[in-house]
Amino acid sequence: MLFTEQDHHYMARAIKLAEQGRFTTTPNPNVGCVLVNDQQIVGEGFHQRAGHGHAEVNALLMAGDKAHGATAYVTLEPCSHYGRTPPCAEGLKKAGVSKVIAAMVDPNPQVSGKGLAILAEAGIEVGAGLLEPQARELNRGFLKRMEQGLPFVSCKLACSLDGKTALNNGQSKWITGPLARQDVQLFRAQSCAILTGADTVLIDNAKLNVRAAELPIALPTDLPLRQPVRVIIDSQNRLTPDLALFSIPSDIIILTTELDNQQQWPHFVSHKVLPANNHKVDLLAALQWLAQQQFNQLWLEAGATLAGAMAEQNLIDEYIIYMAPKLIGNSGKSLVNFAELTKMDEISSLTFKHCEQIGGDLRITAVAESQLDSDEFNRKE
Amino acid sequence: MLFTEQDHHYMARAIKLAEQGRFTTTPNPNVGCVLVNDQQIVGEGFHQRAGHGHAEVNALLMAGDKAHGATAYVTLEPCSHYGRTPPCAEGLKKAGVSKVIAAMVDPNPQVSGKGLAILAEAGIEVGAGLLEPQARELNRGFLKRMEQGLPFVSCKLACSLDGKTALNNGQSKWITGPLARQDVQLFRAQSCAILTGADTVLIDNAKLNVRAAELPIALPTDLPLRQPVRVIIDSQNRLTPDLALFSIPSDIIILTTELDNQQQWPHFVSHKVLPANNHKVDLLAALQWLAQQQFNQLWLEAGATLAGAMAEQNLIDEYIIYMAPKLIGNSGKSLVNFAELTKMDEISSLTFKHCEQIGGDLRITAVAESQLDSDEFNRKE
Repeated sequence: MLFTEQDHHYMARAIKLAEQGRFTTTPNPNVGCVLVNDQQIVGEGFHQRAGHGHAEVNALLMAGDKAHGATAYVTLEPCSHYGRTPPCAEGLKKAGVSKVIAAMVDPNPQVSGKGLAILAEAGIEVGAGLLEPQARELNRGFLKRMEQGLPFVSCKLACSLDGKTALNNGQSKWITGPLARQDVQLFRAQSCAILTGADTVLIDNAKLNVRAAELPIALPTDLPLRQPVRVIIDSQNRLTPDLALFSIPSDIIILTTELDNQQQWPHFVSHKVLPANNHKVDLLAALQWLAQQQFNQLWLEAGATLAGAMAEQNLIDEYIIYMAPKLIGNSGKSLVNFAELTKMDEISSLTFKHCEQIGGDLRITAVAESQLDSDEFNRKE
Repeated sequence: MLFTEQDHHYMARAIKLAEQGRFTTTPNPNVGCVLVNDQQIVGEGFHQRAGHGHAEVNALLMAGDKAHGATAYVTLEPCSHYGRTPPCAEGLKKAGVSKVIAAMVDPNPQVSGKGLAILAEAGIEVGAGLLEPQARELNRGFLKRMEQGLPFVSCKLACSLDGKTALNNGQSKWITGPLARQDVQLFRAQSCAILTGADTVLIDNAKLNVRAAELPIALPTDLPLRQPVRVIIDSQNRLTPDLALFSIPSDIIILTTELDNQQQWPHFVSHKVLPANNHKVDLLAALQWLAQQQFNQLWLEAGATLAGAMAEQNLIDEYIIYMAPKLIGNSGKSLVNFAELTKMDEISSLTFKHCEQIGGDLRITAVAESQLDSDEFNRKE
């Protein structure tokens, strides 16, 4: 199917709609739908939250009879199975749409293509692949989980211009400014879980929650603020219930290598024993288990040791680095701890994706794979 | 004087013209001039090179009789003294211009305002201050030398995303890519001198010249490529004439604490003995002496020790940092060496001015003083 400029326009609109679900749909993907009849938008909708209506259902509800003969633009192939809601492919068929264009097929290999097949068998014209890169960007966590059985990991780091996170004596408050810290809140709010290590919790006594008052934008839906699950790697059971982390009553998962039954934990805290690797929680096993728990997007906010170990094992998809315009010098603490490299070609290369000024700091985005062409640099997010 | 939109337009043109001299005018400032008569540009010119015509002379030559009654837009107050050329204020007067608008007055306190006074006394309408920030940017080296008796120092650094310049074993070729290295050539070509330390020369056996074939743009004038003077701080006389540096026959100045007469140097090499500070050349004394030698703009391309010492003494005006999308880890070499800091508020803050992707790398520009508003960030240079 050849796509027209009009098709691009309506699919771009469907993607914009889908983005409004990014704070709430976990573990479901973000999906948007636009119904167009006789060059008029007659219905549109997006998926807000698991258990609520899918994008297509919301758009069909708005369109009513006007869905008959319409073209449906949907950012993900309509579902074909009975889950918490009936299959959207059936809904579109019953509503009498004449054409369905999906930005991408369902990434789940067990259902991929079945939704479009149901529609095609009903005589509905179908197409797929329109604005697929943008549609994939929308759901990169969901896609990575479906395609690789791992969550998409964004590693947040904050440092001086010379890559130092703290002075030699440990002082680090605050290298970056208040707007950078608000920006972090926005990323946390879009994540399914925040991952860190016991060191960070013990040193900073961090709460690792999302604070509504610090969010720099209004959330796009009326749904209450969702707290990402806080996941702490505590291989040696060093955490204690008196830490500030446990004063916020929202889910915490502690990943460890063996259970320590001596502590009394609040009801919202659970433990998971995972395989050890050199007396530490095996990181790949941890991410695989988290994907099985349906976490799509992890926000890694850790110290130099855990961030370095994750990087060395190629478990980080994206780096979000807040860089302050300051120089600390060689006595400062390094950004990531690695085993010593001896050859330049052992260095793993990233690709810069974006750089933006946030208050007085820079936010530099780099991705682990060369999946971007350079034109994407500085495209506004 | 109230400036009109037309005035802005012509002065912006004069600034563009002035920029064309940026590879050649040293030690003179970059100056552009536009003559407008009856809403037509009748003459324009810029200063190319010391000893050649000033911008006003070139513009008047082009305008001929049409200069009579014209308005002259000039990026710097017309000169009032007899130097290598007659004073431009007199030239404008003789040509019969009716109005002169200067972007800024002459920064030299001994002549400041005299050029405009000559014109005003002749009954010519005069104004100053139009696009002054842009005009100052054009000549920040010349202005710093005139106003503070010091050259403007741009410190070039190249590092990984985590601020490392090399592996622990010293390997560093090449952290940044070929386009970043070409970009450096362009900055070198615009500098009056390249400043470095003996360590860098000895370790890299660097030539520190400008290689025409590597320049990413064509030079704006037909003048031959000017090699910046190479200035090497060699406090302990460790350099020897067999180094690659001395294979390029263009001026080299070696700054030292005492003369060592044992070596035979090529004719283009000179030595200057400067006061010592802890057995090393005193850096402030070195910069003051270089300013006395009429160096406006220094390109500091040094290792972590010299760059760090310059930074600690607040002698750096601007940092140009090429950052590769690579992580080296804590065993790598730090970007700048400082005495250890113990309090966060001891860190000297810079201000980000620009960030741009150069090939696969970032070029981050940060300035030492908060002289910029944030709107300037990402303004194309």
